[in-house]
Amino acid sequence: MSSATQAAEPVARSAPSIAGLTRLAQRDMEGVDALIRNRMQSPVSVIPALAEHLIGGSAKRLRPLLTIAAARLAGARDDACLNLAAAVEFIHTATLLHDDVIDSSELRRGKVAAHLIWGAPASVLVGDFLFARSFELMVEAGSMPALEILARASRVIAEGEVLQLTRAHDLDLPQETYLEIIGAKTAELFAAASEAGAVSAGAPAATCAALRRFGRNLGLAFQLVDDALDYSGASETLGKNPGDDFREGKATLPLLLAIARTGEAEKAFWERTIDRREQTEADFERARLLVSGCGALDSTLALAEDYAADAKAALAGFEGADGWKAALVELADFAVWRRM
Amino acid sequence: MSSATQAAEPVARSAPSIAGLTRLAQRDMEGVDALIRNRMQSPVSVIPALAEHLIGGSAKRLRPLLTIAAARLAGARDDACLNLAAAVEFIHTATLLHDDVIDSSELRRGKVAAHLIWGAPASVLVGDFLFARSFELMVEAGSMPALEILARASRVIAEGEVLQLTRAHDLDLPQETYLEIIGAKTAELFAAASEAGAVSAGAPAATCAALRRFGRNLGLAFQLVDDALDYSGASETLGKNPGDDFREGKATLPLLLAIARTGEAEKAFWERTIDRREQTEADFERARLLVSGCGALDSTLALAEDYAADAKAALAGFEGADGWKAALVELADFAVWRRM
Repeated sequence: MSSATQAAEPVARSAPSIAGLTRLAQRDMEGVDALIRNRMQSPVSVIPALAEHLIGGSAKRLRPLLTIAAARLAGARDDACLNLAAAVEFIHTATLLHDDVIDSSELRRGKVAAHLIWGAPASVLVGDFLFARSFELMVEAGSMPALEILARASRVIAEGEVLQLTRAHDLDLPQETYLEIIGAKTAELFAAASEAGAVSAGAPAATCAALRRFGRNLGLAFQLVDDALDYSGASETLGKNPGDDFREGKATLPLLLAIARTGEAEKAFWERTIDRREQTEADFERARLLVSGCGALDSTLALAEDYAADAKAALAGFEGADGWKAALVELADFAVWRRM
Repeated sequence: MSSATQAAEPVARSAPSIAGLTRLAQRDMEGVDALIRNRMQSPVSVIPALAEHLIGGSAKRLRPLLTIAAARLAGARDDACLNLAAAVEFIHTATLLHDDVIDSSELRRGKVAAHLIWGAPASVLVGDFLFARSFELMVEAGSMPALEILARASRVIAEGEVLQLTRAHDLDLPQETYLEIIGAKTAELFAAASEAGAVSAGAPAATCAALRRFGRNLGLAFQLVDDALDYSGASETLGKNPGDDFREGKATLPLLLAIARTGEAEKAFWERTIDRREQTEADFERARLLVSGCGALDSTLALAEDYAADAKAALAGFEGADGWKAALVELADFAVWRRM
């Protein structure tokens, strides 16, 4: 966060951040970064150009950080986790590329979406390239159990995306189906990133399961906060335009709760803007007020806090391990603190 | 082929076919088919519906046949090759789904293309699902070297597709670049399908290399004949519309040769129809006559025959192995015989 914000808000001195984790993982993440840059190369020049646009810049690299932290916390002594961390980032980037084509998104990671520069076909195919590269990286890491975890995660993500696609504009989407969707399309990769790190360290099954649970709950918390920020954040924080979900008519939890709570009074508004997606410029501002006014934002964030607490509880059995445990606990706090 | 054709054309009695190979591989391919049907299932119902449309029906399953034949010829005693064969078909189907979205094709395997029924987003995502499933199948097969071969192949295919995308309408595309493109987007999977079968059988390196060489040359022959058929075939043989490549302005070898050979006389025609893609209904018929009249079709088919001969030469060192060798030799003959 900027120093200007710190000055205006003294409490922010104790605000959770990922700075500690980033510092601890610095040497490992330099290795991951080198791997990422090396493996996005190709003699076909569009591929590194497009990949650089999306991966090269300001990406937080949260998922690979999670793989590294889980591996080190679980006692990893070698560097197999670096390959897995790079593979996880490639899987994530591949899904972003395909998502942006499907949603016709305009911004990603604070930049113009790749398909608007290179076209949708190149985005689809470079996504396929990165996905294949991720499996090449996993093969190099040499752990069949880690491969199994990440192959399954990739499949579950695709299932979650299709489920979201088919239910996207459903105003009556049950909360459980929404949680199933974000569990598959987001939390599964967090879970797998964490579990694969532990597995590659040769950790016992209970340790791997605990780190999987940490990752899954962290992922759910992150996605819930993301969905809330779409109604409350600014583009700079999001790296994408606030209101994108609303304009796409995406049935996220803040919207579903607002639809349920505002009842008959706003039924016509939601049917027009979400069901039929007939929207004017002013509609997002009205939606933002409704979502916030009925407490849907607060409820979404409260649920995110529950998942973050569950994530931290999953780490109860771990020793300090050179600060890795504390760094992961702070990551869970950071996940829900980002609301601001 | 139909008995009507046989009656009209006595020489056809000795025409090569894949019937012998299909018979030899019948039990294995029933297992592959069961795996394919089992692994295209998902609780998200669009996925099996779309997959069934594309995989369930009349697909020739050439690539999985190749994996089975290579494995058995190399001495495979167990059934690991069945998983790899199903994985190969899933990779192939995933690329077809993405290709059809990118090319906006209307027909595939004799049916309406999936994206016209379920939409492009579902096609992209079900492609991702099948791709991930293929890696789950490979993990089950348990051979890290086979995984390496198929992960690399998946990456090379994506590179070939991007290369094709960026050079697609280039009237001056050198023949070597065209061969590089079909080498990557088609022949690489034939090569990998064959090599992975041999590797999973625990065959020595020279055997694996020979079967890789067989697959690669077979793939090149198949693609060249496909590209020729687009100017000479009927929809029933192709399972897609003849003229698709021409209408998409795709720089395939028959077209490249025709452009070079018809020279200044037709320059304006090619620039209009391929460069600018301004086409009328009658243009394809004229292109067909030009491609055939200047000998571009014959040259393309002659090159395909060279590759088929190379494929057969790669099998020189093999014993009969219960008919597998003869079946693969006939497959190479069949690849170039399909012209009719």
